[in-house]
This record gives sequence, structure tokens and C-alpha cells, in this order.
Amino acid sequence: MPSPSELALSHIPKLHAYAPGFQPSAGEWVKLNTNECPYPPSPRVAQAISEAIGRDGNALRLYPSPTSAALREQIARIHELESSHVIVGNGSDDILNLLVRVFGDTSAATGMTFPSYSLYPVLVGIQNGQTEVIEFDRTMRLPIEKVAASLARVFFLTSPNAPTGVAFSNREIEAVLQSFPGVLVVDEAYAPFADENAVSLVAKYPNLVVVRTLSKAHALAGIRVGYALASAETIGLLDRVRDSYNVNRLSQAAALAALGDADYYTGIIGKIKRTRDYWAAEWATRDWFIYPSAANFLFLEPRNSAGEAGAEVAADLFEFLKSRLILVRAFPSHALTASFLRISVGSDDEMLAVEEAFQAWLTPAP
Amino acid sequence: MPSPSELALSHIPKLHAYAPGFQPSAGEWVKLNTNECPYPPSPRVAQAISEAIGRDGNALRLYPSPTSAALREQIARIHELESSHVIVGNGSDDILNLLVRVFGDTSAATGMTFPSYSLYPVLVGIQNGQTEVIEFDRTMRLPIEKVAASLARVFFLTSPNAPTGVAFSNREIEAVLQSFPGVLVVDEAYAPFADENAVSLVAKYPNLVVVRTLSKAHALAGIRVGYALASAETIGLLDRVRDSYNVNRLSQAAALAALGDADYYTGIIGKIKRTRDYWAAEWATRDWFIYPSAANFLFLEPRNSAGEAGAEVAADLFEFLKSRLILVRAFPSHALTASFLRISVGSDDEMLAVEEAFQAWLTPAP
Repeated sequence: MPSPSELALSHIPKLHAYAPGFQPSAGEWVKLNTNECPYPPSPRVAQAISEAIGRDGNALRLYPSPTSAALREQIARIHELESSHVIVGNGSDDILNLLVRVFGDTSAATGMTFPSYSLYPVLVGIQNGQTEVIEFDRTMRLPIEKVAASLARVFFLTSPNAPTGVAFSNREIEAVLQSFPGVLVVDEAYAPFADENAVSLVAKYPNLVVVRTLSKAHALAGIRVGYALASAETIGLLDRVRDSYNVNRLSQAAALAALGDADYYTGIIGKIKRTRDYWAAEWATRDWFIYPSAANFLFLEPRNSAGEAGAEVAADLFEFLKSRLILVRAFPSHALTASFLRISVGSDDEMLAVEEAFQAWLTPAP
Repeated sequence: MPSPSELALSHIPKLHAYAPGFQPSAGEWVKLNTNECPYPPSPRVAQAISEAIGRDGNALRLYPSPTSAALREQIARIHELESSHVIVGNGSDDILNLLVRVFGDTSAATGMTFPSYSLYPVLVGIQNGQTEVIEFDRTMRLPIEKVAASLARVFFLTSPNAPTGVAFSNREIEAVLQSFPGVLVVDEAYAPFADENAVSLVAKYPNLVVVRTLSKAHALAGIRVGYALASAETIGLLDRVRDSYNVNRLSQAAALAALGDADYYTGIIGKIKRTRDYWAAEWATRDWFIYPSAANFLFLEPRNSAGEAGAEVAADLFEFLKSRLILVRAFPSHALTASFLRISVGSDDEMLAVEEAFQAWLTPAP
């Protein structure tokens, strides 16, 4: 009998699964490695979940709304679009996966920049597709002409970008849209922390898809809800590939409650931006290079006590932080990113713990 | 500019999305169309969800366990396997989708019987794969030699079957496993209502996958949790294609609590089986043909007051029930199923409402 690996499509056994950031299950970690929100979600969320459970959990017997109907309408209302322009996913990763399945395969390349969200090439690999990667230079600015000239059928642009935090302006995005003949996906996971976003362009450009998540600014990584805004034609294509019950009852209710409490989120997003900007300015005085961040994290290039920067220095600081139970993220696989660490913006106490660790790392052993 | 439909892979715009059973959002329906459980889940479920939310919803800030670690261990324990033999999905539909993506494409056919779960051909269509369908005859018994001789790389067998309720024995399944050279998926969504299941064969046959769901017997369709049991090699292949955060925190907690309360579920499953067998016997006395059901539904061929059966008679009864706010499921697209209706086993009150509707339908207008 052939083994399961021999029976699998030939590209599958060669795949490497996406490596998510380490999720410690217990302990006293300062967890600044996956850009979660340091503050709890709106208090309406817990209330909405309790109501959605029903008496004795009785509501959980029944399948959820297959189209996340009420949530979809709420999202449309917030962004001043019709619900036909909205699709809801089991996290935005679900949506990204649908986009790759609709537009990419061996004959139709999927484009992305480097660096950007490291899930894209994993999704293309699962689809056995071709990848076209446009590399940034050290400025991390968008090479508009290169993206516009891409032969990819669908192009993923993360804005604000991960892991750099650098945002691309609507002027730049519109310049791409005016000449790129494929579908442009602007992955706006971090847009609530930025000054501008591309939502207003959705009604104007049928080939634009804007992707959002509730995992970051809405403090709901645990419930897995994301969504996309696009032309009704594109949404219709994605819906053909979507699992019909992809978002469970409790997540639909939680997301609906969170999106209904804009005031609460304006508050915590403002606080996170102030914390980000304070520490970016503080650490820059140490002559550490930090990209201007429009997200909820800082991408910084540390210098050791000898004034040296580089991959080894970053790795050393990563391990030092870990030894003090502070988790951040390193990207050692490429020269553009290897000398940097990405630190999620945490609470004031967490940021002070990071600063104390930096000082200890910089202080020569007596 | 090419439109999104022109940019999509050529098979995508031709797809028809899976049509889930109608999910009324409100009203006083007797809902017996999607085989949901008429009784609430274990009371431990609501408690576990409340605990998983954390104080002020604070736990929801954080990503869930990427591997559903605690749940996976619990599932392994229940089935007396190692956790390397278990994968957890966002509903069993997620698992079925992974199986199609790992084993099927244009060059590698995916096999299934007709009738069976109507999602399989939809998933193969999304993958632009080839389908090999083995049709049952009216007996709805398993043609072992035909399945064993299938050229499919992966074959989906629903047991107990949907929509017939007919279960296939381990003797039959083992006969297939001994000569079929592909991966055999036994979709056991309804196995908790049957006298036998194929779990004991998983350790013996590396090419067997058993799929389970918590949507039916565990009264948790609303949380979307399913799982598969298979060789560690097969689980490793599926894990390469799985979304890394496919099951949210609340669903992991709810499923863990439900699976920990076996006594409660023994009680409600026993009640559902007694209700099923009572009404199967009762309706058979009316000379309506009903397949022997090992599931939580009955597949019955109604006769009208003139003693006639057939597609029109079934459609007439379907509409009559609907006019009385009773939802059941019809399968009008094929001669083998068009003269039947599938009725989920409900509570005693719901079944009495169905019986009263049957009597009214049979009573000639005065």
C-alpha cells in the first residue's frame, strides 16, 4: 500500500507550516511577540458572549449565521459600504487564504513584498503556486513602479507594513492601483494605529481588497475574526470558496459588540499610540535605528555597549530579554531584518520592564 | 483593467457555493433540517466559556493555542490514542477541506458515494479536482468491491451515511481498507448515535482517517469544532495545510468541557435514539419506507392519502410542513433521494408537531 505521504500531492510533504509566534500557555511572561493588545477588549464583549450562549448554553446547539449576517451589516455601516462589499473570516488569515485560492496557482503568480507578513508565502506554498517577491531596500519605502509592473494576478501589500511598521500612503496605493492590472490586497491589520487607510478607495477601485482584523486594535486575537472590504464581484468570488459556517456564534457576537463600542477603542488605540511614540523617541536617543511606526509595534536595531549593531547583536539581545521572561520577535533569515527586533507596544509596566532589561543588557558586567 | 472575475482562476467563477440548510434567524420554527441536537449542551460548557473569557474579557486579547493543545490531548485520551494522532478543526468541514487540499487535484481524483454529504463535491470543485462518484442502489448498502477498486487518491465514506442514516459495519470498512490503495476517510459525524464506529481501526490502518464533529451529538453546532483521528503521518500532512490559529479560544474551552462530561451525553444520546426508534416504528406502520437509521435523523419516503409515493409527494409534504413552520430537508436533485424527506430527531414536542402535521396532510380537506 502507498503511504499517506506518497498519496499526498507531491508539493505537500515538502511544505513547512507557518511558525506562529510562541504562545506560552502559562507563567509570568511579558509577551510582546505577536502584537496583541495590552488592554482588554470593550466590556460589552464579555456581556455579548454571555447573551449569545443563551440559557444553559442552549443557543450553542444551533449553527451560526452562515454569512455572519448581522456582523457583516455592522461592518458595512462602519465603513459606509453595502454589506455586499463585506466578507467575514475566521481571522483575517482565513480571508488571505481565500484570496490565494481564488487568484493564485502554478500559472498565476501571487505577489508580495519582502519584508511583509510571513504567512503569504506559506499560503502560496499550500496552493502550490508561484510567488513573485519584490524586495524593499533599507528605506523600506514602496517601489511603486516595480509593484505596478508586477505580473502577479494578486499582490499582497501590508500597510502599515509588518514587521517594519512603515505605512504606505493612499497616494502611493492609488498610484499602484492606476497601473497594476491585477488584484491589489492591502492588508490593514494595523491600520487602526495609522493616520490614513485605504477604505475610501474600495468604492472607486474594483480590483482593490482591504483586509482588516479584530486581533490587534480590538484586543480580540482569541476569537479569530477578520474581514475584507472589496467590490461585490470580488466578494462573490471569495464567498464561493469560503466555508459556509466559518465564523462561530460566539465570535460573531463578540465582534459585533466590539465594533459597536468605537469610543472605547478610540481610547485604547490613542493610549497605545502615545506609548509607541514615547518609547520610539526615547530609544532613538540611544542611537538605535527605529523605523517610523504607524502600527502597534516598534522595529528597532539595537546597539550593544560597544556601539555595534547587526544580526549577532540582535540575537544576543533577543536571548537576554528571553532570559528575563520578555518575549519579542526576531527575523534572522534575511539581511534586511536580521539586525532588528520587533517589540509589540505593551502596557506602561511592560514597556518599563523592557527598558530596564535594555539598561541591564547595556551595563557591562562588573 | 481585467475584472476580478477575469483575474480569478478559471474554475472559480463557475463554482456554486455549498447551500447550507436554511438557518432562520428568528421566529417559532420547528427546526429539523440540519440535524442539530434538540437538547442543550452539557452545563459545563457555559461555565467553561465564562472562565475562558477571563476577567473583563481580558483572556480574549491573546491568540489561542495554535494546536488546540489541551483539547487535542483530551480527544486522544478519550479515544485511547496519542495526541499525534489527532487534529482539531474549525468544524469537521475544516478537516474535510484540508483532506481535499492534501490529496486531491486535477490529476488525483477524490472519491465519494452518492448519496453522501453534499459538501464533498463542493470542496473538490474549489480545488478544481476530479470527482469519482460511486452510486448506491436503492438498498443503500456499501458496494465494497467498487470502492476498493476506486482509482481515487482519497475516498470519503459517510458512516452512518447522510442523508440515509444507514451505517456501514467495521467488517465492511475493513474489507475496503484491505484492498483500497488510497486514503479512506470515514466521516463519523453521526457515529455517537450508532452501535459501532471505526475508531478502533485507526491504530491498525495508516491510510484510515476518522472524522468527528461536536455539532451533532454534543449539541455544539454553534461553536464549530470537529476533529480527525489518523496516523501521525497523515496528521502531519494535514497540519501543514491547516491555518495555524484555526480554532478560537472559546471553542477550544467549550469542546474540552463537553468532552469531559461523557455521562451527560450518554443520557441525551440515549434519549435521541429512543425517540428516533419510536417514530421510525410508528411511521413504518403507515407503510412509509424508512431506512434503518443509526444517526439522529430519519430518511423517510412519505405516501399521500392516495397511497402514492414519489418526488412530487415528497415535495408536497415538504411545503405542507413548511407552511406549518416545520423545517425539514428535501433532496430533489436525484432519483435515489427525491421521493424522501430527511427529518432530524427533535424533542418529544417537536416530533409530536411533525406527527400532527403528517395527520393533517393525510386528512382530505372536508
